[in-house]
Amino acid sequence: MTIEQFSVRGRLADTGEGITGDELQLAARNHGMPLEGLRYDVTPPGLHYVLVHYDIPATNAADWLLEVGGCVEQPLSFGLTELRAMARRTVRVTLECAGNGRATLQPRPISQPWLSEAVGTAEWTGVLLADLLRLAGVSEDAVDVVFTGADHGVERGVEQDYQRGLSVPEAIESGAIVAWEMNGEPLPPQHGYPLRLVLPGWYGMASVKWLRSISVIDHEFEGFQNAVAYRFRTSADEPGVAVTRIEPRALLVPPGFPDFMSRHRFVAAGTVPLFGRAWSGWAPIERVEVSTDAGVNWHEATLDAAVGAGSGAGLGAEGNDDFAWRAFAYDWEATPGEHVLTVRAYDTSGREQPIEAEWNRGGFANNTAQRITVLVT
Amino acid sequence: MTIEQFSVRGRLADTGEGITGDELQLAARNHGMPLEGLRYDVTPPGLHYVLVHYDIPATNAADWLLEVGGCVEQPLSFGLTELRAMARRTVRVTLECAGNGRATLQPRPISQPWLSEAVGTAEWTGVLLADLLRLAGVSEDAVDVVFTGADHGVERGVEQDYQRGLSVPEAIESGAIVAWEMNGEPLPPQHGYPLRLVLPGWYGMASVKWLRSISVIDHEFEGFQNAVAYRFRTSADEPGVAVTRIEPRALLVPPGFPDFMSRHRFVAAGTVPLFGRAWSGWAPIERVEVSTDAGVNWHEATLDAAVGAGSGAGLGAEGNDDFAWRAFAYDWEATPGEHVLTVRAYDTSGREQPIEAEWNRGGFANNTAQRITVLVT
Repeated sequence: MTIEQFSVRGRLADTGEGITGDELQLAARNHGMPLEGLRYDVTPPGLHYVLVHYDIPATNAADWLLEVGGCVEQPLSFGLTELRAMARRTVRVTLECAGNGRATLQPRPISQPWLSEAVGTAEWTGVLLADLLRLAGVSEDAVDVVFTGADHGVERGVEQDYQRGLSVPEAIESGAIVAWEMNGEPLPPQHGYPLRLVLPGWYGMASVKWLRSISVIDHEFEGFQNAVAYRFRTSADEPGVAVTRIEPRALLVPPGFPDFMSRHRFVAAGTVPLFGRAWSGWAPIERVEVSTDAGVNWHEATLDAAVGAGSGAGLGAEGNDDFAWRAFAYDWEATPGEHVLTVRAYDTSGREQPIEAEWNRGGFANNTAQRITVLVT
Repeated sequence: MTIEQFSVRGRLADTGEGITGDELQLAARNHGMPLEGLRYDVTPPGLHYVLVHYDIPATNAADWLLEVGGCVEQPLSFGLTELRAMARRTVRVTLECAGNGRATLQPRPISQPWLSEAVGTAEWTGVLLADLLRLAGVSEDAVDVVFTGADHGVERGVEQDYQRGLSVPEAIESGAIVAWEMNGEPLPPQHGYPLRLVLPGWYGMASVKWLRSISVIDHEFEGFQNAVAYRFRTSADEPGVAVTRIEPRALLVPPGFPDFMSRHRFVAAGTVPLFGRAWSGWAPIERVEVSTDAGVNWHEATLDAAVGAGSGAGLGAEGNDDFAWRAFAYDWEATPGEHVLTVRAYDTSGREQPIEAEWNRGGFANNTAQRITVLVT
């Protein structure tokens, strides 16, 4: 027997095929943010979505070393103590898994079966990646920067440490930080303790956790996670297009109260304050529209609405929140009967959420407008 | 349309029926502890299992009031400030969901589809429930104590706040605490902020979160969660037997590294230190046995073994850890080929883990011995 026998290519679910045991194993480990978590400006620990490709590694801040090397003038290594002595910044960032929405696609790509809740917003504290690269001195022949984490596994037959590459301009101009704090506390193990990359505006796969090495290379990075895994493809054999920034999305806190098993919602008739969050990794959110009749009529929501009870404490630290979600609200006059709520975000780059899903084989970036069926009593 | 149409009785999966959309919605919200989390004495925030029946309510510590009333000499109410001024204690407790293991049963009861990871250990700080009851003065005709949380929903057609009852002797003698801290911090929202019950040794459904009322009654509590939901039954119509304390279970940290999709494990040949945790809500763990040949031969593990890297800081606060898990270890001489690891715990009450699952209709307390298939290379 070989590793390859147990680590095969992805496949699509058959028509009507239920969620598989493999998918369930992933869903039981990883988790989304229950959508009532949208009420918090900053997602409390444990509610922020988590996706771990392999295992959460056993790590220790005291002896952690981050190596910065490759095509640089001066290879460097940093312990946590040295990083903490540098100029720090805190940024509020909305991170979303590239596979969010995957399990609602037809046919369903078999992988982590997200519905719509693979998102969260945190305040990350660390040093600018650009500062580290400047200290090391990027060579003129540099092309890509490769980030390596400590999590080790195998994927479609390829044994690997989790690695992602980024072009040198992206690495320097993206505002990426190498972070050791989440919401003012050391990173939780599942979020990359003791050190991780945070790349604002990009899907989460780019924000390498348990970061132990930054290596500048003189060619395009062809590692598995860039060249094989995170690609938009419609057939298995095409090279595909890289998954990069987060497409716009708006999500409502589902109103009323739920049935335990079906999660169907029930609301009392009258004025129902709808509240949610919208974000895009491409450009600022410009407009959010709400429909309470399954998309027949649309109403513009109020942006930057006041947040409900239990919220965080206002604006992002130092105003570094260009890639954090924005609140929106809309008062719905709910009348008895069944209603379908739906919501869509537009950003200033001209991107908007589709009403019908655009399918791709990896199930990436499915930002189809949310639909919530509500029974008003 | 009525609430009842959308909130129906539980059912069993058909033969070969995959995980349903309803189950997936629950699995995407709630989450288990990735089993590498067994390495920590105390489970870090966000790794501890979470099950929320309805929505996480919006709550606020500043104006929270806990009412203690019913069959008492003096009805009382407590804000957080008053509770914090009382004699506090910290207990280390392993909590497990009563439905842990449900999704591996045949036929599968359709509900939250846990595999084996719905567990976690935390240090809870609060006041003894017995102290609160003593202050209020329990009447002589008291029979049960009813705990009401702030989470509201509907389940099998019954609209309800989440409520559980406990007999007066159980309430007073169980060592239950009314807690406002988890691991030295305010409770996270999903774990009951600002106040919850923690009932050591019992499955998690008894530890009511977002606790707002404790009411002493002069008859047996017949609420939904006690009389309908958490019962051992083999057919739908029998009254069944109450689910109470946690059955013994041992779980290994899966060794080696995983395949992303199948979670199949790969290990290098040689001495492999196996490590895990075992617990029981009935009595102390007496023995843990490990088999590396699918249960043909069994070997006694070393109890209270030293923990691996990244662990917590030793014994439970004040030694209050009678219901916390115990570490175990066993060195496996791994030879190339496929091996099935399995492990079982015994407690001093004579309870032991079964090798074959004992089925019940709700899928409760399935503590069948863990099995991990490993390819040694």
